[in-house]
Amino acid sequence: MLRLNSNYDKLQSDYLFVEIARRVNKHLADDSKRKLIRLGIGDVSKPLSPAIIKAFHQGVDEQAGETTFKGYGPEQGYLFLRAAIARADYHERGCDFIDASDIFISDGAKCDTGNFQELFASDIKVALPDPVYPVYIDTNVMAGRTGLAQNGRYQGLIYLEGNEDNDFVPSPEELENNPADLIYLCFPNNPTGTTANRGQLSDWIQWALSRRAIILYDSAYEAFITDPDIPRSIYEIPGAEKCAVEFRSFSKTAGFTGVRCAYTVVPGTVEIEGIKVQDMWHRRHSTKFNGVSYPVQMAAAAAYSAEGKREIKENIDSYLANARIIIDAMNSLGYRHWGGMNSPYVWIKTDEDSWLTFDKILKGADVVITPGSGFGKMGQGYIRISAFNSVENVREALDRIVDLLSKS
Amino acid sequence: MLRLNSNYDKLQSDYLFVEIARRVNKHLADDSKRKLIRLGIGDVSKPLSPAIIKAFHQGVDEQAGETTFKGYGPEQGYLFLRAAIARADYHERGCDFIDASDIFISDGAKCDTGNFQELFASDIKVALPDPVYPVYIDTNVMAGRTGLAQNGRYQGLIYLEGNEDNDFVPSPEELENNPADLIYLCFPNNPTGTTANRGQLSDWIQWALSRRAIILYDSAYEAFITDPDIPRSIYEIPGAEKCAVEFRSFSKTAGFTGVRCAYTVVPGTVEIEGIKVQDMWHRRHSTKFNGVSYPVQMAAAAAYSAEGKREIKENIDSYLANARIIIDAMNSLGYRHWGGMNSPYVWIKTDEDSWLTFDKILKGADVVITPGSGFGKMGQGYIRISAFNSVENVREALDRIVDLLSKS
Repeated sequence: MLRLNSNYDKLQSDYLFVEIARRVNKHLADDSKRKLIRLGIGDVSKPLSPAIIKAFHQGVDEQAGETTFKGYGPEQGYLFLRAAIARADYHERGCDFIDASDIFISDGAKCDTGNFQELFASDIKVALPDPVYPVYIDTNVMAGRTGLAQNGRYQGLIYLEGNEDNDFVPSPEELENNPADLIYLCFPNNPTGTTANRGQLSDWIQWALSRRAIILYDSAYEAFITDPDIPRSIYEIPGAEKCAVEFRSFSKTAGFTGVRCAYTVVPGTVEIEGIKVQDMWHRRHSTKFNGVSYPVQMAAAAAYSAEGKREIKENIDSYLANARIIIDAMNSLGYRHWGGMNSPYVWIKTDEDSWLTFDKILKGADVVITPGSGFGKMGQGYIRISAFNSVENVREALDRIVDLLSKS
Repeated sequence: MLRLNSNYDKLQSDYLFVEIARRVNKHLADDSKRKLIRLGIGDVSKPLSPAIIKAFHQGVDEQAGETTFKGYGPEQGYLFLRAAIARADYHERGCDFIDASDIFISDGAKCDTGNFQELFASDIKVALPDPVYPVYIDTNVMAGRTGLAQNGRYQGLIYLEGNEDNDFVPSPEELENNPADLIYLCFPNNPTGTTANRGQLSDWIQWALSRRAIILYDSAYEAFITDPDIPRSIYEIPGAEKCAVEFRSFSKTAGFTGVRCAYTVVPGTVEIEGIKVQDMWHRRHSTKFNGVSYPVQMAAAAAYSAEGKREIKENIDSYLANARIIIDAMNSLGYRHWGGMNSPYVWIKTDEDSWLTFDKILKGADVVITPGSGFGKMGQGYIRISAFNSVENVREALDRIVDLLSKS
């Protein structure tokens, strides 16, 4: 008899941002007065930069010509893009050992972080941070690696707790008596905006090497790192080339949230039982994916041109200036906060139910933020404010929020 | 201990087209004399049509403007595209009940047909045609729904045999003593180019309804159907709205193999145990996918404009004229053949090992075709020739093939 994948029944609620959209739409229909300002989902607001637009158009024009038209491309991405990434994002930062063949172009880091777990057995032990980007959890639930949820946590998953004491950077000591096989880490972190330093990342790599574990390292926000002492890639840590996979995206870096391009780095030296994980990801890509749109890959490659780099840096800098506005406002309110220095996100301790604060700010300030509890149990009592908007909107939103919360 | 998904070990060989590429590259390096002509993989050769290019550029331009920029779109696709599809591909063909909300935009039918099986339990019975597009099989192997392969067939799968007697259209009678829960059908068929008529499809729908099975209907080649008596959608068959999911693509229709856009139709009326399959696919899309590039969706929507429709029809007609050249050549050689009338593929019985014919034609005619055995045991002794190339190339390739094979 045909039966459904019953693991879907275990999923607790709708995907976080779907629930936010539901509440926002209700607010807009019911009692919205002022312009709504969105500092919630973490979607970029600045248009694509001129160098990228130019290359994008060029890619489209090639699709119009008899001799320049391109049909199916390589599932793993065009070499021009893979080589540009290897050179600019790895070789120029001292990671010479990352080769174009280690890089797999995709249509999103969400897809890649969601799909990568398919390569592993269904009964391995998975550890992930709390708070965390919900996709890591939900995709492991769908794959049957968990039991039911109890008190907001799935049986069978190991939660690496972030809190005030560890500044939301969990250490491998938490796994001492409960070892994990596959560990998700995300720095600069979504949602807390915190970063891990060289020593903290080295501890993780040493732990993974000693336990033959693999680290899935999500560095989708690396472009926001301004502090030269903070690693931008996990491969800056010796040994990572044997135990770590890195996810990156053009979404937040180059404004590609609506354009869709990302990449995953799987070094040929990551092996389990003598099998290269790269070969398995290659096979999955070949079988279940058909490559990224050619004009989009052209646009992505332009992010590595001299003009592209300069334009992108200007955008990143302006988002970071917005984050500074958020930090200053939270300081004026006397709230503790994290992130915002090497990240577009500021994580704020409000000491009340996160959805209560969400609703209060939505109704009282017409501003959308993200409730911390949507990212896990440890996010309860926190909110996330995103710097992705125009400086005018960020200023106005924070003025409204300060006005609202200083009265309450 | 970290262990890999051992189901990947069961996969028999590289994805078919990877193996073809390997042999072609070796030939090019070794002893190629004349221009190589590719009638293999089934990739379109004509550039995007002017109406589509115009809309594509417009979408890119919008990404350059402060007020027109679009970040994350709906994971399921923009309403302008979903509504255009519902109207043109369904309402105008009498399937009024298909709503925009039943349509899910994606980056490829390969991805969708590969991913859809995730919604079902891992121990259901799967039936699929032989010969068949390899993705249906391989993705079920990866998901653990099969045992090991023996003599070219996976234990646990049910193979619906296509042959000369049934003109490569298997009937549900084959399942009489071995019922399946999930059935893949593909018409116009890849690889055989054959189509199923209304009566044959009605038999399948009746069977699925009576057994509470679901049919995954791949109609990626529907645009090539010229015979008005052949259904272009499974929803032209009464009852299909309760038991069928349909996969479609802009790849072969509008030349999007390098641009990437497709869609899957999951009517809200397809239910299992009271659960809407549409809700589950919606959840999967929301969790593991982030929508299709906005400029690509703009380009896809232009395929439904008056100019777009006319331009696309011209392209399809020219591919069908190429198919006629292939058919005439095969007639002159005295080979039996199928397809090519409502399909870009001609399926030819050569009565010798398929890879032998493949190598013979590659080396003797510098033409790439596809070996039938790459599509399954029943494809042994057959080859597939694709009409996707310029008329000049198709003429030259077939002249060379006729010259070669009439001598041997």
